[in-house]
Amino acid sequence: MRNHYIYCPRCGHHPLTDGIPIGDTHARQYCSQCHYVVYDNPRVIAGAIIEREGQILLCQRGIPPGVGRWTLPAGFMERGESVEEAAAREVMEETGMQVEIRSPYSIFSVPPTNEIYLIYCAAPIAWDNPPGPESLRVAWFCIEEIPWEEIFYPAIAQILQRYFDEGLTGRHGVYSGSMETGLIHFVS
Amino acid sequence: MRNHYIYCPRCGHHPLTDGIPIGDTHARQYCSQCHYVVYDNPRVIAGAIIEREGQILLCQRGIPPGVGRWTLPAGFMERGESVEEAAAREVMEETGMQVEIRSPYSIFSVPPTNEIYLIYCAAPIAWDNPPGPESLRVAWFCIEEIPWEEIFYPAIAQILQRYFDEGLTGRHGVYSGSMETGLIHFVS
Repeated sequence: MRNHYIYCPRCGHHPLTDGIPIGDTHARQYCSQCHYVVYDNPRVIAGAIIEREGQILLCQRGIPPGVGRWTLPAGFMERGESVEEAAAREVMEETGMQVEIRSPYSIFSVPPTNEIYLIYCAAPIAWDNPPGPESLRVAWFCIEEIPWEEIFYPAIAQILQRYFDEGLTGRHGVYSGSMETGLIHFVS
Repeated sequence: MRNHYIYCPRCGHHPLTDGIPIGDTHARQYCSQCHYVVYDNPRVIAGAIIEREGQILLCQRGIPPGVGRWTLPAGFMERGESVEEAAAREVMEETGMQVEIRSPYSIFSVPPTNEIYLIYCAAPIAWDNPPGPESLRVAWFCIEEIPWEEIFYPAIAQILQRYFDEGLTGRHGVYSGSMETGLIHFVS
């Protein structure tokens, strides 16, 4: 959902103005009094594909949106961390598993939701903790068992489908693109 | 620089509270009155390396910060575009060149500035326009000519150095990491 501010967060002035700020190229909200500009840049979702003997680890969502539906462990990157650190933290929070982040798998843009999924392949190191409150439960799925209709995010379903398809050929690449268009760059 | 809001952008209340909102895991600013939470997620800078016969296209910055210093064409990704579209738009704005975005080259996290550089290799299609006001000028550089001391962003200098180093071996990979640590994943 697009940011929509009522008050200027810097000077408290309202209403804000919609338009192209001086010297800018894009329409944004800005403050006509103190010239504060509201930027609404895409947010990065970092996550991981964890495979064990042909099975993938999925989380059943325990918080809205989509409670009860399944997804890869993934979530918003935070200030002060690298993408790899964000992906490992999200896996720990949502599964309780400590992983090693191995290699980039998807640079997946979702313009309608203003998000970018940066998904990595990861390997388990230790699983000493239960999942946190964001997951109802966590389970391994082989391709025949994946609850495709219950996967919450279309981007995640597309990424998972590609992973299994590539697994049949034994060659995993780095995808860069969106739902509609993109290219797989194979990694040696 | 960390976001720091004085007024709640939704209800105008001030001051905001610093702390961990209920149900959250990270300290943020939030409004004690209407419960608005200020998220300060990392921003994506999309850009491109454009090579022509062993030379790379660089831009001399025409706007602060770093006026007069050199960098790759790159800038903040905007709502509604894919990373590839953002990189191509930034190249057009800063050089006037139309390019084809080819393959991901760097997923480069910069936690201190809360940024991620997503840099792609790109190829020129047409160069019919002058650079916009963000660039003083645009020029091709071979490795011996790169003004290393005048490259504005340390991440960009590191990416450029790797590109030339790999060029000597004829093998370009996808780097994922930060200034301090990371891995190159070679693309076939």
